[in-house]
Amino acid sequence: MSLSMKPSRPFRLPVLALLALTFAYSPAMAATVASVESPDKTLRVELDLDDGRIGYRVLREGKPLINTSRLGFLFQNAEQLQRDLAFTSQATRSFDETWEQPWGERRLTRNRYNELRTRFTEKINLKRDIDVVFRVFDDGIGFRYEFPDQPQFQDVRITEELTEFDVARPATAWWIPAGEWNRYEYLYNTTPLSEVGRAHTPMTIRTDDGVYVSFHEAALVDYAGMWLQRVEGRRLKAQLSPGSEGWKVRRTAPFHTPWRTLTISNRAGGLVESSLILNLNEPNALGDVSWVEPHKYLGIWWSLHLETQSWASGDKHGATTAETKRYIDFAAKHGFRGVLVEGWNPGWDGQWFANGWGFDFTKATPDFDIEELGRYAKDRGVHLIGHHETGCAVSHYERQLSDAFALYARNGVDAVKTGYVCDAGQIERQDVADGPVLREWHDGQWMSNHHLRVVKEAAKHRIAINAHEPIKDTGLRRTYPNWVSREGARGMEYNAWGNPGNPPEHETMLVFTRLLAGPMDFTPGVVSLKGRNGQVFHSTLAKQLAQYVVLYSPIQMAADLPEHYEQYPDAFHFIKDVPVDWEDTRVINGEPADFVTIARKQRGGDDWFVGAVTDEQARTLSLPLDFLDAGRRYEAQIYRDGEGADWKTNPHAFTVEKKQVRRGDTLSLWLAPGGGQAIRFRAL
Amino acid sequence: MSLSMKPSRPFRLPVLALLALTFAYSPAMAATVASVESPDKTLRVELDLDDGRIGYRVLREGKPLINTSRLGFLFQNAEQLQRDLAFTSQATRSFDETWEQPWGERRLTRNRYNELRTRFTEKINLKRDIDVVFRVFDDGIGFRYEFPDQPQFQDVRITEELTEFDVARPATAWWIPAGEWNRYEYLYNTTPLSEVGRAHTPMTIRTDDGVYVSFHEAALVDYAGMWLQRVEGRRLKAQLSPGSEGWKVRRTAPFHTPWRTLTISNRAGGLVESSLILNLNEPNALGDVSWVEPHKYLGIWWSLHLETQSWASGDKHGATTAETKRYIDFAAKHGFRGVLVEGWNPGWDGQWFANGWGFDFTKATPDFDIEELGRYAKDRGVHLIGHHETGCAVSHYERQLSDAFALYARNGVDAVKTGYVCDAGQIERQDVADGPVLREWHDGQWMSNHHLRVVKEAAKHRIAINAHEPIKDTGLRRTYPNWVSREGARGMEYNAWGNPGNPPEHETMLVFTRLLAGPMDFTPGVVSLKGRNGQVFHSTLAKQLAQYVVLYSPIQMAADLPEHYEQYPDAFHFIKDVPVDWEDTRVINGEPADFVTIARKQRGGDDWFVGAVTDEQARTLSLPLDFLDAGRRYEAQIYRDGEGADWKTNPHAFTVEKKQVRRGDTLSLWLAPGGGQAIRFRAL
Repeated sequence: MSLSMKPSRPFRLPVLALLALTFAYSPAMAATVASVESPDKTLRVELDLDDGRIGYRVLREGKPLINTSRLGFLFQNAEQLQRDLAFTSQATRSFDETWEQPWGERRLTRNRYNELRTRFTEKINLKRDIDVVFRVFDDGIGFRYEFPDQPQFQDVRITEELTEFDVARPATAWWIPAGEWNRYEYLYNTTPLSEVGRAHTPMTIRTDDGVYVSFHEAALVDYAGMWLQRVEGRRLKAQLSPGSEGWKVRRTAPFHTPWRTLTISNRAGGLVESSLILNLNEPNALGDVSWVEPHKYLGIWWSLHLETQSWASGDKHGATTAETKRYIDFAAKHGFRGVLVEGWNPGWDGQWFANGWGFDFTKATPDFDIEELGRYAKDRGVHLIGHHETGCAVSHYERQLSDAFALYARNGVDAVKTGYVCDAGQIERQDVADGPVLREWHDGQWMSNHHLRVVKEAAKHRIAINAHEPIKDTGLRRTYPNWVSREGARGMEYNAWGNPGNPPEHETMLVFTRLLAGPMDFTPGVVSLKGRNGQVFHSTLAKQLAQYVVLYSPIQMAADLPEHYEQYPDAFHFIKDVPVDWEDTRVINGEPADFVTIARKQRGGDDWFVGAVTDEQARTLSLPLDFLDAGRRYEAQIYRDGEGADWKTNPHAFTVEKKQVRRGDTLSLWLAPGGGQAIRFRAL
Repeated sequence: MSLSMKPSRPFRLPVLALLALTFAYSPAMAATVASVESPDKTLRVELDLDDGRIGYRVLREGKPLINTSRLGFLFQNAEQLQRDLAFTSQATRSFDETWEQPWGERRLTRNRYNELRTRFTEKINLKRDIDVVFRVFDDGIGFRYEFPDQPQFQDVRITEELTEFDVARPATAWWIPAGEWNRYEYLYNTTPLSEVGRAHTPMTIRTDDGVYVSFHEAALVDYAGMWLQRVEGRRLKAQLSPGSEGWKVRRTAPFHTPWRTLTISNRAGGLVESSLILNLNEPNALGDVSWVEPHKYLGIWWSLHLETQSWASGDKHGATTAETKRYIDFAAKHGFRGVLVEGWNPGWDGQWFANGWGFDFTKATPDFDIEELGRYAKDRGVHLIGHHETGCAVSHYERQLSDAFALYARNGVDAVKTGYVCDAGQIERQDVADGPVLREWHDGQWMSNHHLRVVKEAAKHRIAINAHEPIKDTGLRRTYPNWVSREGARGMEYNAWGNPGNPPEHETMLVFTRLLAGPMDFTPGVVSLKGRNGQVFHSTLAKQLAQYVVLYSPIQMAADLPEHYEQYPDAFHFIKDVPVDWEDTRVINGEPADFVTIARKQRGGDDWFVGAVTDEQARTLSLPLDFLDAGRRYEAQIYRDGEGADWKTNPHAFTVEKKQVRRGDTLSLWLAPGGGQAIRFRAL
């Protein structure tokens, strides 16, 4: 890049002319001021200053992965922070701790990194200090800005963050578009990185030399969510979700941004196995969270999407006392802890999603006796699961929050699914009752705060939260372990609504993109394989079982109707057996959009579970049983696609078989087109 | 596209199910509600409603050019306007008028179109009316939104315009990135359309079936400039330039947006010859503009970029009385009307571009006697050209505007170059003296208004404006004919600053992109071909002359130093002869980024002028002299690359020859690598 690419005005040119004479057009004009490596020295981050502008770059095994990329901010009420900076100081430290997750995809998590903390100071104008902190792990990096306490940062109004990620190599990218719709519910694109437009995170890429990188953020607190804008070439820029006032983020120093993260591996599975996002989050702030119980649940939900029942009142109303008891009975019989009920409260009649202001969360509809049902459930070891669909009238919801949770807590509800559906609009914020209504974005600063207000209020009532149409997961479940799951992608409901539903590759995409952020309430297990009007969707029966292992969530729904599970008892057996809390997780194989095999060990037990899924192609995958405990025998209970199974023509072809295996054996898993396989390794 | 791609909630599904039964999965679910064709019926625009959402599409010769694309708005203080719309009414009319430009690339301009005016009304919530108006010309389309006077539009605060342009075919795109820097000064990218990130307009494409389209806007008044964001595939979306408050545009109805324009042709040259942008602008509002005189000028400017002189005071100060007299003498001797002087006023010492608040526009530096120079120039038929570099302290500038223009008017200055350089920041707006300072974008709503305040105030003083680091040109020169030119792209100054300077293809790019918006003050004609430190830049001598014909502006600089023109008298002869105001313009041939040949007829005379330029490749171009007037003889005065000329090795090889020609003859123009040719056809 030539010196004159970013032209500067004459007063600088004598300096550049001097440098030109000195270095004779050498492109390496910037001076490296600091660097830090991963503990295993595979990754290296270098910071440089080029004409007063900070740049960082990332090398892997000595080769550029991210070329020098800029940092900085635009402000509404101050000069931009981007140039004329001097390097002031640095500090490094190393950290290595193993911590225990109260629930999760693994119990013990190692947090080991080298940290570089740097301070830069403006040489002109406001002479502000800004800190940039890098943590380099063996499996990736995170960096964030810290705004030190200074008079100039009394009221910081960020209009844009100027962070860039200039990818050094051509790459394939798996991504969904950002800034369009108020949800993350898109099918993923597979394109060259150079064809990305504007993307949500996680966005995952694989470079042409086989390095997998997933871009995301950790600890999104009191800040706007970050999109990735590709302006030209392979240079991505942060674009913050907009706000309703003249800024995207408003804070007072001292404060810090979320961590901008790159999870890096030479295997796709390495991205899944990484705990980088959680490790960058603050430890548990809630204290005892034994009341957060991972569980499986059923619900009056699928019928609503099939339209055989309705959210709205009337003779199709799903959320009635009698119908809920039927579900509770079924749950109790089969060992499911929870029953979700949607449509239980006033506000569903009419165009609820265009007018969330009609919802009342403090009482039930006349035909839903919540107290009776709370007792009925409790007597059977079941809990009702609550539902707070806001219709995006978020301030209206918040004003009822405490009473709403109290109502639930009184009636044995300790988990709530929230919703933010507003296809006709945006989030509606009203700071003062009867005051002006402002429109916010689902992932802007205001909503990042709203979600935490909900989670914290819920914790007071010992209630867990499962947010739909949410803000993206950035690992805050570590700090608030009652934030158990969320939607934030296309889940099972898309299969209810008819063609085309989710494509066969969907699960294989989610594992390497959406699920890198955290658990997803995908609501798997629709064994009937049919949506509305009897339309068959794009999966085999065996894949519906594999979903429970492949798509991690501490809460998992058996989403189909009870009567359908009764028609498929063999398949249902696996759903009843599969745990939702894990000691450990290993990705055996996998490629985004193609296939994946995951093995997980039950927490508090000795069994292992494996799930494998494929896209539209049949595959035979090798499963070396290296993960089984040495010296034990297991009965492999195999639930697989039957002979001739095919998502298009024969999705219900299904076989269950058993065999004894031990560590060191290898199984060969044949997956049908659009198929899967689920295995319980029952320790003997 | 499946019905369930944009999922809707249950209350709509019965309707969709019904449609599914009725149309059996036909993708053409939307109903066409209105359409309009071009006068020659080549272009057709169709409007449809799909589930209450408006879409428009464009066909050319019956084939899709723009697939159904959405329209709408997001607001800070109201629900979005995007769906649940019903078609209320339509009106069509035809228009055909020929009008005369007071100056321009042609004198007579035909404005012929068919107009479709439509009204849509929301069925729910606020029940707002919104009008969408299409004008279809033989060479393109323009459309805009009109917000009718309604209580709901009392205070409209737009946070995004949702206009889309879903290009139907693969295409090559020529574009510069938007939303990064506060200028348009980039080299153009040539990429597949699918690799565009976020682009400024004009953006030009050529589809795989040979249709050229340029995307732009017309009549950008009291609104934010539009960028084009490619989110995925070939679907472009409008993204408005941000504002400093909680919206991008704030207006009260009735008002209308700028016209979103597509200039369309089966020849690249057809884009250049089109007057669509001007035709969509309002007629001249200033009345008599005979005081706006197209002219050529010299200036104390190149020396500043060469650093042999300085803007700042001291012994290298360029803007002194003596030096300016030297330029005035040279201008008078060679028939140049204007002498630009930069650095004439206080504020240039120190870091001016980081602190525009130090500029004073109401008085000169002690060594610049503006009154003496005004008289000196007047006695010689020359005018000083003023310079108002704001350093982006725009409110500070505005507070001095009237006095600054009055000073100039008193001293014979009737043209001013303005500047908005602020590499260290953004536009600084301060509504109240000593009040808070907000940051604005160069092309946001506030700056769109600032520029018109300047132009209107200048008109009161009979002063023409040439804006550098401006907002993009959208044809407002029709309404305000004293807005004569602007920069808004990389001009000659990039060649002053050393390698790499502008590449050989640069002019051929500008003609088919930037220059489609309007005139550019490129400042051509640096016959020495050298920038700072004697570095040769990427052009032959003949191309420097061709620039005067190929890069249209009513004001053209002879940008080099007088002493350099004295070294190249033959080349200078053409510069002295070439007019800057035209009766007509024809593009003989050309392809973006490759080559172009343009012929123009002098206004008020009989001569024709031709300019041809090529990129890094040598070319032989055929020039059929069909444009010459029948029955006349002409002396072709040919200024061309000499034998062996080459921008890399032999840029000054140059030949002048003369021959008699007439209409019907054909000339063969050989252009060297990085070369050009300029011809005066002197009518005999």
